[in-house]
Amino acid sequence: MQTLRQFQEIFHSYLQENQFRNQPRELYEPVNYILSIGGKRLRPVLVLMSQALFDEKIEKSLPAAFAVEVFHNFTLLHDDIMDEAPLRRGKPTVHIKYDVNTGILSGDVMMIAAYDFLAKIADESKIPALYKTFNKVAIEVCEGQQYDMNFETRDDVTIPEYLRMIELKTSVLLAGAMQMGAIIGNASAADAEHIYQFGRNVGLAFQIQDDILDTFGDPEKFGKKVGGDIVQNKKTYLVLKALEVADETNKKDLQTLMTTPTINEEIKILTVKNIFNQLNIRNLAETLKEDYLKTAFEHLEAVAVPKERKQELINLANDLMMREV
Amino acid sequence: MQTLRQFQEIFHSYLQENQFRNQPRELYEPVNYILSIGGKRLRPVLVLMSQALFDEKIEKSLPAAFAVEVFHNFTLLHDDIMDEAPLRRGKPTVHIKYDVNTGILSGDVMMIAAYDFLAKIADESKIPALYKTFNKVAIEVCEGQQYDMNFETRDDVTIPEYLRMIELKTSVLLAGAMQMGAIIGNASAADAEHIYQFGRNVGLAFQIQDDILDTFGDPEKFGKKVGGDIVQNKKTYLVLKALEVADETNKKDLQTLMTTPTINEEIKILTVKNIFNQLNIRNLAETLKEDYLKTAFEHLEAVAVPKERKQELINLANDLMMREV
Repeated sequence: MQTLRQFQEIFHSYLQENQFRNQPRELYEPVNYILSIGGKRLRPVLVLMSQALFDEKIEKSLPAAFAVEVFHNFTLLHDDIMDEAPLRRGKPTVHIKYDVNTGILSGDVMMIAAYDFLAKIADESKIPALYKTFNKVAIEVCEGQQYDMNFETRDDVTIPEYLRMIELKTSVLLAGAMQMGAIIGNASAADAEHIYQFGRNVGLAFQIQDDILDTFGDPEKFGKKVGGDIVQNKKTYLVLKALEVADETNKKDLQTLMTTPTINEEIKILTVKNIFNQLNIRNLAETLKEDYLKTAFEHLEAVAVPKERKQELINLANDLMMREV
Repeated sequence: MQTLRQFQEIFHSYLQENQFRNQPRELYEPVNYILSIGGKRLRPVLVLMSQALFDEKIEKSLPAAFAVEVFHNFTLLHDDIMDEAPLRRGKPTVHIKYDVNTGILSGDVMMIAAYDFLAKIADESKIPALYKTFNKVAIEVCEGQQYDMNFETRDDVTIPEYLRMIELKTSVLLAGAMQMGAIIGNASAADAEHIYQFGRNVGLAFQIQDDILDTFGDPEKFGKKVGGDIVQNKKTYLVLKALEVADETNKKDLQTLMTTPTINEEIKILTVKNIFNQLNIRNLAETLKEDYLKTAFEHLEAVAVPKERKQELINLANDLMMREV
């Protein structure tokens, strides 16, 4: 079993070899740019690690891993336009460095290029199943993004709606990436489903952890500004749970804090955190996260391969929760 | 052999049955909207007509026909955002009726939905070949759009570059649509290639015809304002050919007309047309169009099916040149 670092290196080499050198340059340069600004390469690594559970010749799934990474970066590119985000991983976003039209069209060609790479899988008989998984996931990611945008202007978002949104927007791509690795690795249908559910539940746990860290994280370690979700009135799990369990007074206070634009940012963060603490919200969120993680590990446990092959995935899931990846 | 009208009706019924009823509504309503505002449905009809050359059970290729139409409308949707176009076929464009973010995301989901419909083809063994054609065409359409945008700010566009741009932006989708129909109809590789070349050359002829009509069309019959290309300084085949064959005086006059923003529109149209007439540009363009059409018919001739099966395609190509479709 290779280590996470080795999987990352194998993928990184493939990424380097597969830079887009096609014409017109104006279309492909932004594609290489966004792919070069990095990240953990979590999704492609999950494709490779999932395949390796069943079949160690992981070069077989490199085109699928690349397809997943290109697709993920396409979603980031278009989301950044929609969110008018100036920075991505500390670098100018594509629509800032180039322009909005370039961002739209380069994003479009990335999505198609993802499909094109998926077709490079050597075993042609796998292609219909891979496309089926990819299509479903890609559609769900768009639906998740739309729900996320809808929630910005809604004040009656429920917890199940929120969980479904983060599942669509984030988890299904991790799940689908792993399912694709399993398909290429010739896993049984049952094992491919377990691996999908592992990815899905890890993704949900990861997103809840993200909500927790945004409010309770260590400012030294957390990449973004702690409290950013509170300042932006984001309807995270923490807020929705707080609104659910709060008495009338706390509920009213929370709602006032979220609808009064003139409040000083630091005071707002402190006051909301104070309400969260009174209501034990952090623990409630930690419990939900642990539940997802437990379910994830149960599905991994059920996959019919020797236990030692699963260790690297267990480590990765635990590291993700500690933000050490 | 069914008539063009019958093919259109079969496709129209399928389109009606396959409206997007998924959630969230905000994502799919604009998709149904743009698909409802019509057009000739030329591309999906070409899929069906191409299949019918080889196999009359054209319901087999309806999902591919739908995929092609959804993809085409996705490109229109994103192009309209990039061009800031307020109207499409006389109706408000999606980014005007809704907003730009909706336009971006609904366009994205349309492209994926196109891939998803292509996977609904009953004979799974055809899927890798269909995706291969579709991926290639879809990438080329994006490249064509980028070249078109690049040409707006370039003053050294050559005729071969222009012809390659219109091939990518317009012709390859007609060609690919027909190739997909041929694949589904179990055509030989040679016949599928002939059918591709038929579509490609008809597309090129059609685009040259479009350039001619924009300047020399009958204002009563032409849908858009005659002379629009001249007013917008578009580098059409007419202009590029005129710049090629003009003497120094005419060349200088043309360049002045294209770079002086203060000229009265009607005078500009008249003066440019006058130069075109002096240089016999309309005839030169008609000749090129006829050459493409001749090549198209040679490829259709070479397809190894009885001659009478080809008649409806010959009629369609001729009608397209007369703008009677």
